[in-house]
Amino acid sequence: MITPSADDAGASAVPVTLALGRRVGTADPRLFGSFVEHLGRGVYGGVFAPDDPSATPEGFRADVLELVRELGVSVVRYPGGNFVSGYDWRDGIGPREARPRRLDLAWRSIETNGFGTDEFAAWCRQARVEPMLALNLGLGDTRSALQLLEYANHPSGTTLSDERVHNGSPDPHDVRLWCLGNEADGPWQLGHRSVRDYAERAAVTAAAMRMFDPTLELVVVGSSNPQMSTFGAWEREVLTRTIDLVDYLSCHIYFYDDGDLGTFLRSSDVLDRFLDDVAATIAHVRAATRSVRDIRISLDEWNVWNYAAYDALDIGRPFEEAPRQLEEVYTLADAVVVGSLLQSILRHCDVVSIAAMAQLVNVIGPIRAEPGRPAWRQTTFHPFAAVARSAGHTVHTVNTATGPDEIVTCIVTVSPDGSEALVHLVNCSTATAADVELDLTALDADQVDGAHLLWVPDPHATNTIESPDAVSPQPLATDLRGGSLRLTLPAVSWASVRIRCAAEGG
Amino acid sequence: MITPSADDAGASAVPVTLALGRRVGTADPRLFGSFVEHLGRGVYGGVFAPDDPSATPEGFRADVLELVRELGVSVVRYPGGNFVSGYDWRDGIGPREARPRRLDLAWRSIETNGFGTDEFAAWCRQARVEPMLALNLGLGDTRSALQLLEYANHPSGTTLSDERVHNGSPDPHDVRLWCLGNEADGPWQLGHRSVRDYAERAAVTAAAMRMFDPTLELVVVGSSNPQMSTFGAWEREVLTRTIDLVDYLSCHIYFYDDGDLGTFLRSSDVLDRFLDDVAATIAHVRAATRSVRDIRISLDEWNVWNYAAYDALDIGRPFEEAPRQLEEVYTLADAVVVGSLLQSILRHCDVVSIAAMAQLVNVIGPIRAEPGRPAWRQTTFHPFAAVARSAGHTVHTVNTATGPDEIVTCIVTVSPDGSEALVHLVNCSTATAADVELDLTALDADQVDGAHLLWVPDPHATNTIESPDAVSPQPLATDLRGGSLRLTLPAVSWASVRIRCAAEGG
Amino acid sequence: MITPSADDAGASAVPVTLALGRRVGTADPRLFGSFVEHLGRGVYGGVFAPDDPSATPEGFRADVLELVRELGVSVVRYPGGNFVSGYDWRDGIGPREARPRRLDLAWRSIETNGFGTDEFAAWCRQARVEPMLALNLGLGDTRSALQLLEYANHPSGTTLSDERVHNGSPDPHDVRLWCLGNEADGPWQLGHRSVRDYAERAAVTAAAMRMFDPTLELVVVGSSNPQMSTFGAWEREVLTRTIDLVDYLSCHIYFYDDGDLGTFLRSSDVLDRFLDDVAATIAHVRAATRSVRDIRISLDEWNVWNYAAYDALDIGRPFEEAPRQLEEVYTLADAVVVGSLLQSILRHCDVVSIAAMAQLVNVIGPIRAEPGRPAWRQTTFHPFAAVARSAGHTVHTVNTATGPDEIVTCIVTVSPDGSEALVHLVNCSTATAADVELDLTALDADQVDGAHLLWVPDPHATNTIESPDAVSPQPLATDLRGGSLRLTLPAVSWASVRIRCAAEGG
Repeated sequence: MITPSADDAGASAVPVTLALGRRVGTADPRLFGSFVEHLGRGVYGGVFAPDDPSATPEGFRADVLELVRELGVSVVRYPGGNFVSGYDWRDGIGPREARPRRLDLAWRSIETNGFGTDEFAAWCRQARVEPMLALNLGLGDTRSALQLLEYANHPSGTTLSDERVHNGSPDPHDVRLWCLGNEADGPWQLGHRSVRDYAERAAVTAAAMRMFDPTLELVVVGSSNPQMSTFGAWEREVLTRTIDLVDYLSCHIYFYDDGDLGTFLRSSDVLDRFLDDVAATIAHVRAATRSVRDIRISLDEWNVWNYAAYDALDIGRPFEEAPRQLEEVYTLADAVVVGSLLQSILRHCDVVSIAAMAQLVNVIGPIRAEPGRPAWRQTTFHPFAAVARSAGHTVHTVNTATGPDEIVTCIVTVSPDGSEALVHLVNCSTATAADVELDLTALDADQVDGAHLLWVPDPHATNTIESPDAVSPQPLATDLRGGSLRLTLPAVSWASVRIRCAAEGG
Repeated sequence: MITPSADDAGASAVPVTLALGRRVGTADPRLFGSFVEHLGRGVYGGVFAPDDPSATPEGFRADVLELVRELGVSVVRYPGGNFVSGYDWRDGIGPREARPRRLDLAWRSIETNGFGTDEFAAWCRQARVEPMLALNLGLGDTRSALQLLEYANHPSGTTLSDERVHNGSPDPHDVRLWCLGNEADGPWQLGHRSVRDYAERAAVTAAAMRMFDPTLELVVVGSSNPQMSTFGAWEREVLTRTIDLVDYLSCHIYFYDDGDLGTFLRSSDVLDRFLDDVAATIAHVRAATRSVRDIRISLDEWNVWNYAAYDALDIGRPFEEAPRQLEEVYTLADAVVVGSLLQSILRHCDVVSIAAMAQLVNVIGPIRAEPGRPAWRQTTFHPFAAVARSAGHTVHTVNTATGPDEIVTCIVTVSPDGSEALVHLVNCSTATAADVELDLTALDADQVDGAHLLWVPDPHATNTIESPDAVSPQPLATDLRGGSLRLTLPAVSWASVRIRCAAEGG
Repeated sequence: MITPSADDAGASAVPVTLALGRRVGTADPRLFGSFVEHLGRGVYGGVFAPDDPSATPEGFRADVLELVRELGVSVVRYPGGNFVSGYDWRDGIGPREARPRRLDLAWRSIETNGFGTDEFAAWCRQARVEPMLALNLGLGDTRSALQLLEYANHPSGTTLSDERVHNGSPDPHDVRLWCLGNEADGPWQLGHRSVRDYAERAAVTAAAMRMFDPTLELVVVGSSNPQMSTFGAWEREVLTRTIDLVDYLSCHIYFYDDGDLGTFLRSSDVLDRFLDDVAATIAHVRAATRSVRDIRISLDEWNVWNYAAYDALDIGRPFEEAPRQLEEVYTLADAVVVGSLLQSILRHCDVVSIAAMAQLVNVIGPIRAEPGRPAWRQTTFHPFAAVARSAGHTVHTVNTATGPDEIVTCIVTVSPDGSEALVHLVNCSTATAADVELDLTALDADQVDGAHLLWVPDPHATNTIESPDAVSPQPLATDLRGGSLRLTLPAVSWASVRIRCAAEGG
């Protein structure tokens, strides 16, 4: 039970008064998605490590699988990311010894193809997640995309589907979610071309896929980040051409601490604005095209990542198998930001239906794994796992008395039967603790079922292989009286409270 | 010999006086083309049925072949239609047991590839028709098109042409007519893209094909029907880019009775207008580009077909081999409309050089075939077979005294040596018989060599497997005196009269 | 030693006074490049003739190799030219007996693929030239280009690079110079499409290649000749899209005597203007795009060739292996023009870094080879070999007293250490000899080390297999006094003088 001392919590804790705001909608379980790319040790040495003591008969790391289930991931995007724009899915099927070794230009690696579509589908079943497959619309073409679709989803009786059966998957993988390429707006992307040409390719591919199965859910590529010079115009042109053929518009965003911790901790303000802007563009195109389709946002890459430190070409670096890349070690501050970004996502659940924290293991992931050692949880694992329990809940915003510069952000979700509420909180001040009072009378809040705080004095503290639980949730003291919840949040902290509501017995 | 009673022919027959009009030109034999697509039972169970008692050693239905020859078909387009835009011609060559089974997304079928390019070429020789091959410019590319061209037309001595020889065709197929894709303007088409992108692909492909053989005849894609929102603009843009590279501009049109029989029977007015509009667009582009090329129309799909009743996606329908699809059963009224559409085509023989009634067997075809039973003629077979005898004739329009609302339409064709005239007539009234008098003095009409009427009292009567000749031509009473031909046409009827002319002996 | 008589040299020799002009820059050795295309007997029977008595163990003609080394060629472009736009590089690797026989539509030939990328790389090593590979961006695609790059340049350890090792090339070919297609602006080119579409393809391919190796040197396609209606606009649009991705802008030009020898002899005026115009376009695009990249000109096809006499389609000509095509026989006048074009290239060494005289053997080449006979030098061999010795030299223009209509053109180059100067001269008058006086005091010219004149009385004289040295350089009388060089140039002649400078000992 943590009751941060006045000293820990900052010299002068300030009072913060919160009240339930508007009911936004329902949190689609797919908001708690993740992403596995053929990049660094994400696949090889991450989800797949046949020579590791932890390996299942299929070669999957069992400890990673266990952590993925604990994390509460709903859907996993695969196989890229930038990787997919140079990938030929046929390289990754069939007898492993016959699979080719390829250069991966996107991440300057050698791809052994030991893990492919069939392995991923099998892994998803074990991880109890839904697969979301990205198609190569960079250097790949529509015909190859259709062949993958037939291979993956057609039951049997054609040459391609029988090939899948022969390769050991008698049942179709039945993938519902398909990404029409990846970050096609980015000059770094293999096959990056004009927005007009991307829109044509996406439209041709989407239309053909729907002829196979009109119920597929298709994601068209939006902007790689809000700083792209084409942001807004790209979405408008792509969606104008494809609005009747797709279901989701993708967007991506990453944040990092460039030395100004205070700004970094307010990253969710930027995400709020980004999602609002994308939603506005969708609404505009619907109006301008007289379309009645309900296009929704797929925020299929988001996380904390210092991408500015990554040099894609890195002249002279040799091509190697599964090099150590993007193995970001996350701090308490990073976890607090992840917690606040998840609040932003929930706050936009009326327009966002899919979100994927990028990525899952080793590569900017909440899970880390080293050969021969047990996998462990990074700091960011904890807010994700806790907020993922809001899947399917009704989302309520929370109003503050002091306006947008409030140091505490909060979101409240309520289970479909009204019996449980989850309160997720962040103190994004770098220096000031907050004595929070949240009025929950409207929910008939009855009693606190559990409360946890993620906090240590050093905001740059991390979890390591030797000390994997250095930063992990600890019980938090709370007080629920007269429908009001009271608790204290130290500076740079994240908390989650579970509340039983009277509606349960009512 | 039929002399319809006043009762049959309508209570009050009206007099209709006709006179020869202008000489339009010569009817290219290719105006009497047909179309065989991999669709439903058009190929499998239609032209090709190796297990049927009627099968030739090659697996062709001999009775269908016989009817095709009787029908007088000159040229047959193959293998699509929508099918071709997803087709890889390599799937359909070589040892049959090694050919792949593919999904056909266009018609939601499984394609066994038991019948391919070589089989079609062999069938054409037996049917005594010219092949017209369509290229896949949907999901296919120029290189694949060139490889098919080399495979089909190069004598031998290269890897691809020697492969054809090895597959049992020592002589080149020498295909002269090639379609640069199919209905690329239609959103339903695999690979449907912007007009600009189609025009580029067509131009690149056409230019490359001409480098193989400058004498090939190439057909560029126009509008799928005159209701397309892009009609006119599509042709203009495509032709502006390709006018120096192609020979024909394609157009398609279908008609059906949506409950208003009177309007349906006047369908040829719509076709007249459509062909005039396409011809005007060609003339415009010639003027605007200062081109001297004589681009002509290829009306390579036309027929009666209730396409509105066809649901292309038909969610939930399983993919199967040669499903029963589009097996339209034709009525007398349909045959009368076919007769009048053929008149429209002849009336435009100065601008139209190719026309293909779509399709040939089972699938919206004049011929029907069921397993183990003799093939039979649908109602539409008869006007086609009769008018096809005008191939190579000089075409004369016919003027009426009463203007465009005249209930009788008529066209007269004269053999090259002037010894024979064919008079094709339609009564498109739903209720009124016509006492026709046609002045043929200008042709030195000498005597009637034969006259046939297609008519039964019920305009919705059909031919069935049990009663295959229910609607078939019967001898018609005529009177040729003083150069004037007299005959009576009941409401909803079609007739054709053969006349020997004095020129024969002159 | 030749001292042309007054009679030979023209009745009245005129005095021509020359002085050193501005220092232009350094002549990149790559200005003395050549070109080997799969065309006629350029490859088969030219560089490669395994059955010839002259063949090396690899099947290369040893006498041709020897002449190539003598010619001083620095870099050789391969395999086209128009050929490359239909070429699949995979056809040309692996066991020779398994390579396919293909139609080459560009030159209406049959390509046996007996010579391919690996053979070319081996030949380059023996010829001591740098390879410059052209990619198929006509009917080929980016993926195939990347696969060739990996095959050619990746050391080993991937399926493609190991395939090269297995095919007998353990070391990577390490090709630095790559052409992004060929003459994409020409309607005769396979895959010719709009400038916008070419620019997109080139950009996509260039960006992907740089991801493999950022230090590659890439050449984007400019105009096929200055008469193209798109000249200027094509370069502007292509470069605007690709300026940050490429290093060179290509241009091509050919000249021939269409009956007006005087105009033909002044061809270098046209080349001067062409290079100025291309350089201006580059400068404009740099300014308009705010780019800081130093894009330079690759004049990768230039020569004397009567292309107007070539009919590309030549209806009815059968496809055959290595037909005799473009076997231009060069005259003295042609050689004089080549000499003046080389001066133009040197004069533009500040903007031009690569130039390739097209082509090398038999096909519009300076070297000719017939089966079983020794290869010989055409007239054009001689000025090329002499001027190629200026590789790496500092280039100085030469001013004339009488302006642009001067009958003598001259360029002076100085070795890096200042010890040697080369003076290249042309008399482009058809009738008048020139008594030349060139002031070389600025170079401390010390003594003449050698002087050669290419001249015979008949400007249409040629070298033949029987008389291979009919037109070849002869010693020329010179006089160097007071820093002034004096010599006499007959009408239609070319000369080169080597001078030792005082700087040598200084």
